[in-house]
Amino acid sequence: MALLDILIGRRLANRESAQGKITTIEGLPAIGLDGLASSAYGPEAALMILLPVGAAGLNWIAPIMLAILIVLAILAVSYWQTIEAYPVNGGSYTVASKNLGANFGLLAATGLMIDYVLNVAVGISAGIGALTSAIPALQPYTLGLCLTVLALITIANLRGTLEAGIIFAVPTYLFVASLGGVIAFGLWQTFLTDGIPTPVVTPPAVPAASEAVTLWLLLRAFASGCTAMTGVEAVSNGVRAFRDPTVRYAHRTLVAIVIILSMLLAGIAILAHTYHVGAMDQTQAGYQSVLSQLTGAVIGRGTVYFVTIGSVLAVLCLSANTSFVDFPRVCRLLAGDGYLPRDLAAPGRRLVNSVGIVWLAVGAGVLLTAFGGITDRLIPLFAVGAFLAFTLSQSGMAVHWWRQPREGGRRWLNHARLAINATGAVATGVSLAVILAAKFTEGAWITVLVIPSLLALLKAIKRYYDQIDGQLVNDTPLKITDERPPIVIIPIRDWDRLAERALRYALRLSSEVIAVHLTQLEGPDTEEHAGALRRRWHDDVAPAVRAVGLREPPLVQISCPYRSTGPLLDFVVHTQKRHPGRAIAVVIPALADAHWWDYVLHTRRVRRLESTLLREGGPDLAVVIVPWTLEEPQP
Amino acid sequence: MALLDILIGRRLANRESAQGKITTIEGLPAIGLDGLASSAYGPEAALMILLPVGAAGLNWIAPIMLAILIVLAILAVSYWQTIEAYPVNGGSYTVASKNLGANFGLLAATGLMIDYVLNVAVGISAGIGALTSAIPALQPYTLGLCLTVLALITIANLRGTLEAGIIFAVPTYLFVASLGGVIAFGLWQTFLTDGIPTPVVTPPAVPAASEAVTLWLLLRAFASGCTAMTGVEAVSNGVRAFRDPTVRYAHRTLVAIVIILSMLLAGIAILAHTYHVGAMDQTQAGYQSVLSQLTGAVIGRGTVYFVTIGSVLAVLCLSANTSFVDFPRVCRLLAGDGYLPRDLAAPGRRLVNSVGIVWLAVGAGVLLTAFGGITDRLIPLFAVGAFLAFTLSQSGMAVHWWRQPREGGRRWLNHARLAINATGAVATGVSLAVILAAKFTEGAWITVLVIPSLLALLKAIKRYYDQIDGQLVNDTPLKITDERPPIVIIPIRDWDRLAERALRYALRLSSEVIAVHLTQLEGPDTEEHAGALRRRWHDDVAPAVRAVGLREPPLVQISCPYRSTGPLLDFVVHTQKRHPGRAIAVVIPALADAHWWDYVLHTRRVRRLESTLLREGGPDLAVVIVPWTLEEPQP
Repeated sequence: MALLDILIGRRLANRESAQGKITTIEGLPAIGLDGLASSAYGPEAALMILLPVGAAGLNWIAPIMLAILIVLAILAVSYWQTIEAYPVNGGSYTVASKNLGANFGLLAATGLMIDYVLNVAVGISAGIGALTSAIPALQPYTLGLCLTVLALITIANLRGTLEAGIIFAVPTYLFVASLGGVIAFGLWQTFLTDGIPTPVVTPPAVPAASEAVTLWLLLRAFASGCTAMTGVEAVSNGVRAFRDPTVRYAHRTLVAIVIILSMLLAGIAILAHTYHVGAMDQTQAGYQSVLSQLTGAVIGRGTVYFVTIGSVLAVLCLSANTSFVDFPRVCRLLAGDGYLPRDLAAPGRRLVNSVGIVWLAVGAGVLLTAFGGITDRLIPLFAVGAFLAFTLSQSGMAVHWWRQPREGGRRWLNHARLAINATGAVATGVSLAVILAAKFTEGAWITVLVIPSLLALLKAIKRYYDQIDGQLVNDTPLKITDERPPIVIIPIRDWDRLAERALRYALRLSSEVIAVHLTQLEGPDTEEHAGALRRRWHDDVAPAVRAVGLREPPLVQISCPYRSTGPLLDFVVHTQKRHPGRAIAVVIPALADAHWWDYVLHTRRVRRLESTLLREGGPDLAVVIVPWTLEEPQP
Repeated sequence: MALLDILIGRRLANRESAQGKITTIEGLPAIGLDGLASSAYGPEAALMILLPVGAAGLNWIAPIMLAILIVLAILAVSYWQTIEAYPVNGGSYTVASKNLGANFGLLAATGLMIDYVLNVAVGISAGIGALTSAIPALQPYTLGLCLTVLALITIANLRGTLEAGIIFAVPTYLFVASLGGVIAFGLWQTFLTDGIPTPVVTPPAVPAASEAVTLWLLLRAFASGCTAMTGVEAVSNGVRAFRDPTVRYAHRTLVAIVIILSMLLAGIAILAHTYHVGAMDQTQAGYQSVLSQLTGAVIGRGTVYFVTIGSVLAVLCLSANTSFVDFPRVCRLLAGDGYLPRDLAAPGRRLVNSVGIVWLAVGAGVLLTAFGGITDRLIPLFAVGAFLAFTLSQSGMAVHWWRQPREGGRRWLNHARLAINATGAVATGVSLAVILAAKFTEGAWITVLVIPSLLALLKAIKRYYDQIDGQLVNDTPLKITDERPPIVIIPIRDWDRLAERALRYALRLSSEVIAVHLTQLEGPDTEEHAGALRRRWHDDVAPAVRAVGLREPPLVQISCPYRSTGPLLDFVVHTQKRHPGRAIAVVIPALADAHWWDYVLHTRRVRRLESTLLREGGPDLAVVIVPWTLEEPQP
């Protein structure tokens, strides 16, 4: 696969190879980036829902954000405990599987897989939203830009060069510093002006209200805002990556992520209110993302503005990138348990990463195309999977504490822990219910349909492997009844080097060898060619075999229209009938496929013949492939 | 491949299976449809070029069409002779290969292949142009409709149900009758009104002139109009399809096609002039194809209008369909000569048709998408390939007559024939030069780039096969030096039925059998499992082998991280080193893949292992695949 090697290179390393190395400083970008990036689209998603109520909506963004922050705090404390209890791998799949059973684990994994796909689509579309806010001329090319970024990230991940490291650290800290600085400056201005700051660049006026504020609207805004919490679970998946003492570093990183995220979310909500920044329709010309309006209002459209928006773009694209590491990891876990093709379970290989990356890229590409690269249309599908996984993970933790020994001095501690995770489960469960109810008709139904379909597929694969394993069980003692060598059949086209190799090998396997020449019906030289082969066989091949005392192999010529495999198969069946109970071996000389074009131009025929023989030839037939290496022909 | 069978069915029959059956009546739709359909876009393409000169352009359409009809007449006489000289297969590839050499034949074939792809794109886009003329509300969905029709035609052809027959005959004759009737009625009206008929529905006014009439403009209009001649060569490819006397029926069909096509083209040109019908921009709202404007002007937008436009739509889509029969046929011819993967050469199989159909559909889909489904943008790419093939075919015929015996009574006849085909070659050659010059910057450069690239690819494939064939030549007499049986290695995971089958087969092949158990590093049960297997081997397997007097096969356990093939390969190399000169056989038990999911879920691993062993294991290693059929597990 030389071409592929050139295009996508050898896999060099991935985030997990940093196992046991990182501290909080490196952990914040490597593991927290995804969670922090959510602040770029979460508040905007909530504001978008509040759009129809006009300026009144801006009064409600702070209370809604408060509710979101409360859930986030509960989630943080819950995950603190998860990290302690599962310091090796505390992913939702593992926690739910161990405590709630395989089905719930699988449900959590399915939810996460869906959300990884959505995370790619939302991250990229929000990043391009930031870009088109800064450079409005690019706005008509939104979808094209999204797909280009997706293609670049995909190729980069297939090459394996995007590691957690400086590439993650610089944009993450730049993002926190610049956006944090803008927010701090804005809050300071708000404080100085008693809550009525003068924007440097006035944001577009919030359109007049067309609807009244209802509880339903606020719930929908909350549901959309919950997308700001996606990615928080990452620390519990990646504890192994930390340096000793791993749990302490993981705890510190979790706390750092949640505090920074909370401050960003709270700051954005307050400033959206004081600077009168509302969401805008991304499909309309002149679209400005909330962060773009906010930054412009606080600091003007100077260098700081472009640095901030640039870091937002970078962080969002890298946040999409984290799915490219997490998705294959979940696939590998599932494959190891037999829920996906087993050969994906090998962690040392590029295969699982490549297959997973391609699936992820195709899924995200389909979503981006279907929804035109517009973040707002993707949001209703998002967060369902994440909150499903949150809820199952927290419920699993609650069961975990419940099952701890009830005796001994630390009984009250287990009770407290149970209470905390149970609260987490209820909070995320209620949020999930709100998200589902509020977003169902707007797109969440797609997620609700896809999750059980995927679940059913995974379970069907598992059932397939279980059935095979059941059939393979071998309880009876071995009894060997027939050790006669097989009758060997060699299909040949001509007395060439391939045929010679096949015959030499066949004579090692058995004294009963039959060469079958499939003559073609068409063409005027057919009979001449067949005659020449017969003479060659009679004059050269047969005597050489006799010379070493072996039985002379007969040459059978069968006319075979169109090089089809049918007549050969008929001959095999015929031979089986004449020698009942005897094993048959068909020796096929094959070019070893050193290049992909060998496969297309040559090997595929051998493979097709092999497959047909194995499928149709019955249980007593084996296929022997004798390789023949070319002296490097180039097409 | 049960899923594929359901989706695309078994191939039932194709146009060629009608061999020796059809007469002129059936031949006109089956073979002439493509040529006749060209009248629906050829005149419009010429009028489109004349658009900038306004009403003056309508005075020039008749002379331009006259030039086109002269070339068409020359072409018809030339092909009359080709049919006579090559009554079996007079396709451009065959005629050019035989008379001008393989390279020119290949060039003709390449030109034709490109034009088949373009014929699909142009046919469909012109058909949808007719549809959106009749139902303007559909106009914004032009590209979507084009791709839908392409998908339907592709699936229909993969199923193999679109045969020449009633499906072709009804639309073709309806098209000729309705459009011919409209033209005849229009000409009659023109005659009655002394050349100034009153349109029933007045066509949109031809826009005012923005340019002057130049010779260059007229040449460009001629070049675009030449697309009306594509498809005329079909009779010479399909002579075999006719009933005896084949040549006479083929001649009649050719004449019928050319006369009907000429009358349609001439009629459209005259009426466009008298009714003031100009071309319109397909990308603008309110687009009306020339035939739609003309029919509306002559007869009004009543039932006859919708019948006529409906037949135009049907004939154009079916004309796209003819490429789906012709393209795989050319692929098959090329594959038979080693210019495409050899397994495509088998005419009895679905493979070549499926592969060819998919290539064609992808090519046409890319073209339609890239050019937005707008006929006018595709026209510059079109006709280059066809006129290249025409020119090469006619030149080939000229050489054919030149090489005929110069003596005897029919010498003058050969001279006359030579003159006719030479005239054809010159006429089509000049047309090709005009098309290339006039259309180069507008898109013909794409065709000019693609043809040599494709040619280079075909020649590279041929060179590859020639190299292989050269290396395979076997001149030395056979001398058998070593007939010792191979050392057989069986990789096993467990003592299951697969392992038992492999061992039974291995014992037939050799007395030296080694079982290799690749234990996995991870997992707590690894050592336990390895020990259990050792005990089972010692207590059950080894004694059973000893009982029949064979040498006891050792069990080698190697720890193997991540199920990779590396350690097994190392063991093979190690064994080869310990027994230099001995052949090695690796026996792999494999599930016979009865379903495609068997391949994905199981067989692929075996195939990968097999490929790795064959590629890396050296020339003395063979792989023996022992099939094991499942008792129908369903995923």
